[in-house]
Amino acid sequence: MRIGELSRDTGVAVPTIKYYVREGLLPAGRLTSPNQASYDDIHVRRLRLIRGLLDVGGLSVSVVREVLAAVDSPDEPVHKVLGAAQHAITPVTAARPEGLEEARRAVAELLERRGWHVEPDHPSAEVLAVALATFRGIGQGAFEEVLDDYASACERIAAADMAYVGRNAEVDGLVEGVVIGTVLGDVVLSSMRRLAHVDRSARTYGEGAQEASGEPDTPWAP
Amino acid sequence: MRIGELSRDTGVAVPTIKYYVREGLLPAGRLTSPNQASYDDIHVRRLRLIRGLLDVGGLSVSVVREVLAAVDSPDEPVHKVLGAAQHAITPVTAARPEGLEEARRAVAELLERRGWHVEPDHPSAEVLAVALATFRGIGQGAFEEVLDDYASACERIAAADMAYVGRNAEVDGLVEGVVIGTVLGDVVLSSMRRLAHVDRSARTYGEGAQEASGEPDTPWAP
Repeated sequence: MRIGELSRDTGVAVPTIKYYVREGLLPAGRLTSPNQASYDDIHVRRLRLIRGLLDVGGLSVSVVREVLAAVDSPDEPVHKVLGAAQHAITPVTAARPEGLEEARRAVAELLERRGWHVEPDHPSAEVLAVALATFRGIGQGAFEEVLDDYASACERIAAADMAYVGRNAEVDGLVEGVVIGTVLGDVVLSSMRRLAHVDRSARTYGEGAQEASGEPDTPWAP
Repeated sequence: MRIGELSRDTGVAVPTIKYYVREGLLPAGRLTSPNQASYDDIHVRRLRLIRGLLDVGGLSVSVVREVLAAVDSPDEPVHKVLGAAQHAITPVTAARPEGLEEARRAVAELLERRGWHVEPDHPSAEVLAVALATFRGIGQGAFEEVLDDYASACERIAAADMAYVGRNAEVDGLVEGVVIGTVLGDVVLSSMRRLAHVDRSARTYGEGAQEASGEPDTPWAP
């Protein structure tokens, strides 16, 4: 197909498609004449992946470039490709709030308590420690009371994610599936958590709430 | 305290503190002479909240300004303040992937199936629909198989969040607590999910994995 059709099929404007090609996110089309290139289904799927990672996942162009470079390394073993892709999409925080050392110990204790096989210096453990130190710094250190509820929920989600990958991924789409599952899974989880807050708030405080409640009038969500 | 001490206490550079005052994020200090202002614990706590929302939560300066304006409306009823703050931190997506209508129906069905008291046009329901449409667009529509696992996990988390707020929030810190709980709670959840993936991957595919597994060699995480 020509670039105009690719644009219509994906809803991505022609200059944007050309920008992605220049930035190395999208392979160039096959030249059919000096001024014309031909595109196929691989481009359609890749464009949707790019838009998902950028617009929905909120990744930057440079991170998407790094992820796709990993996805496109056919000669590397799957382990290595996945590692590189996961590394690219794992947020790294430069924040160093007060109390970070103590928060790191709390994270190490959590990993120990849950029996999770994770190195305590994993980048996501550091992000978690920074978040906990921030809670403490503004007088909300009691948030740690709910950490094990979060951990139980994450164990359930991780089990479902792994089973999904095992069931559905063909080798071809495997890395793509894991990348999009990690990035968009965060979006799914964050939006669902807000919807669940709305629901609980409506049940607890809304009109027609079943139980008379002695709790303060503190809906979590509008 | 003087601005230098405020800077030392919070680790935020003096020019950055002045920038936050100019941008309306931080109240100005009390002038003690034409060239000198005095700051107190309210400024320390507010600075930590600002840094948490910006650096850890990834919010923009303009969103943080909107959130803090809501937090600082003492004459408004708590309901209204919370609503304004939650509105400011709820991501709005402009993405319109193909298949969005169908994905919206899937979200409405999910809300119905779970019995969640949520309007189907809630902004977070739209974000969820956009994410699902993106999964479908790249051939990963089967991800919807795990939606109910995610929903169960979110019900558990929302219950824990609400109980935490009920137990710990003084009226003074209530809105602050809900805002930071929503924003940093996303960060906690996302980093924990990645750690749980690492754990499951290590158990399933790592050295010393207990069970011989017929599944493909597909660790979710490095």
